[in-house]
Amino acid sequence: MTYCVAIKLNSGLVFASDSRTNAGMDQVSSYSKMNAFASGEDRAFVLLCSGNLATTQGVINHIRLALYDEDDKNSFKNFKHLFDVAEYIGLLSRSVQGRDRGGPQQETVNLDASFILGGQIGNEEPEIYLIYPEGNYISVSPNKPYLQIGEIKYGKPILDRIIEPDTSLEDAARCAIVSLDSTMHSNLSVGPPIELLLYGKDHFKIDRYIKLDIESPFYQSVTQGWGKNLQKAFTRLPRFDWEY
Amino acid sequence: MTYCVAIKLNSGLVFASDSRTNAGMDQVSSYSKMNAFASGEDRAFVLLCSGNLATTQGVINHIRLALYDEDDKNSFKNFKHLFDVAEYIGLLSRSVQGRDRGGPQQETVNLDASFILGGQIGNEEPEIYLIYPEGNYISVSPNKPYLQIGEIKYGKPILDRIIEPDTSLEDAARCAIVSLDSTMHSNLSVGPPIELLLYGKDHFKIDRYIKLDIESPFYQSVTQGWGKNLQKAFTRLPRFDWEY
Repeated sequence: MTYCVAIKLNSGLVFASDSRTNAGMDQVSSYSKMNAFASGEDRAFVLLCSGNLATTQGVINHIRLALYDEDDKNSFKNFKHLFDVAEYIGLLSRSVQGRDRGGPQQETVNLDASFILGGQIGNEEPEIYLIYPEGNYISVSPNKPYLQIGEIKYGKPILDRIIEPDTSLEDAARCAIVSLDSTMHSNLSVGPPIELLLYGKDHFKIDRYIKLDIESPFYQSVTQGWGKNLQKAFTRLPRFDWEY
Repeated sequence: MTYCVAIKLNSGLVFASDSRTNAGMDQVSSYSKMNAFASGEDRAFVLLCSGNLATTQGVINHIRLALYDEDDKNSFKNFKHLFDVAEYIGLLSRSVQGRDRGGPQQETVNLDASFILGGQIGNEEPEIYLIYPEGNYISVSPNKPYLQIGEIKYGKPILDRIIEPDTSLEDAARCAIVSLDSTMHSNLSVGPPIELLLYGKDHFKIDRYIKLDIESPFYQSVTQGWGKNLQKAFTRLPRFDWEY
């Protein structure tokens, strides 16, 4: 499993992902699920991946090939809108899945993959898209300005309570860490290190990228601080009438 | 969908459940999923239900029939151990599901039901059991002393952070309200009113039972208080190094 989240704010975009990959309980590994393609003065792209690792790696490889080939109409240099990129990745994902289907394992292996694409092209607003295994995609809702893929439920309540369009990039990044931390506590298939990326609107470059291992002092201070603050918050809840 | 949780503490048991039942989006109704059977001086039972409403009502009806018939070996008056009751309910559930299977709808209707049984008999410790649709059952883990059925993921992180064996019944009940509230925020198929039941060890009666509708002042003060306290807790998280 996987857990990735992308948040769209007035001031830019925040991306976070875990790194655990597993095929069964005894084949557990660590792979980055975050890919940044900052490919020009007027454009920047980040892609988060979830699902079958061979499918997502296949898609990333095709994107990289097209990136370096300026004549390729699918080079990210040549797209006019971010949703064009979402559409291209959706088609790529279907084509990679289609190539691998029909083998002898077809009934037992799930080749599905989901992606979150975020970024900005030219004068367009920064945007995030969730690309489904079917290749179709959605943009984010203005009321709940975040998208998730993978094991999404455990980490959702904290996003719902904290994230607003005017939340700062840093606060959203802290919220993403807490959301990932809660998920890792509850589901073994989501694991460290956590990758975190902040993109400031109109910057057309990655502003901040950090990779947090579970032993890193910052990660420790956030998760322990959160545990303590939460318990304090809890003790301040109102009493039942029979407790007075 | 449904969300029910039962918590085992040193001082007794806490039960909480939502009340929403739906068959599709246009058949939404409100049914209690909490049943208390305090059937004698040395025993008390609470049963939480999730799954197919006809199955759970069938099981409850059979239990009530047996309850009033003292000669029935399955009257709760005659069981020696709480796990005997769990086993009986598991068998009942399978038999009700089996009775309803094989009809023309068999491929499309899910008749599964899950239960949480909690209570105490005589000198035994209070205990909680999760009874699966297959009729088999598990007791609670000492480390994570709670069991959930239904839409369990959204409300799990707060239980993991707060519940310890020595948590008080009232604190556990507040935690259950927050856990249900977080779930109701995230999933439309879980809805009010919330039922809450507290059982003190060796009391052999229901100590406290309350039903909280969403407009009730206490529920409002908990959910609003929690939202505010959580945001305050969040602002106290450590800064990134570039924020200083």
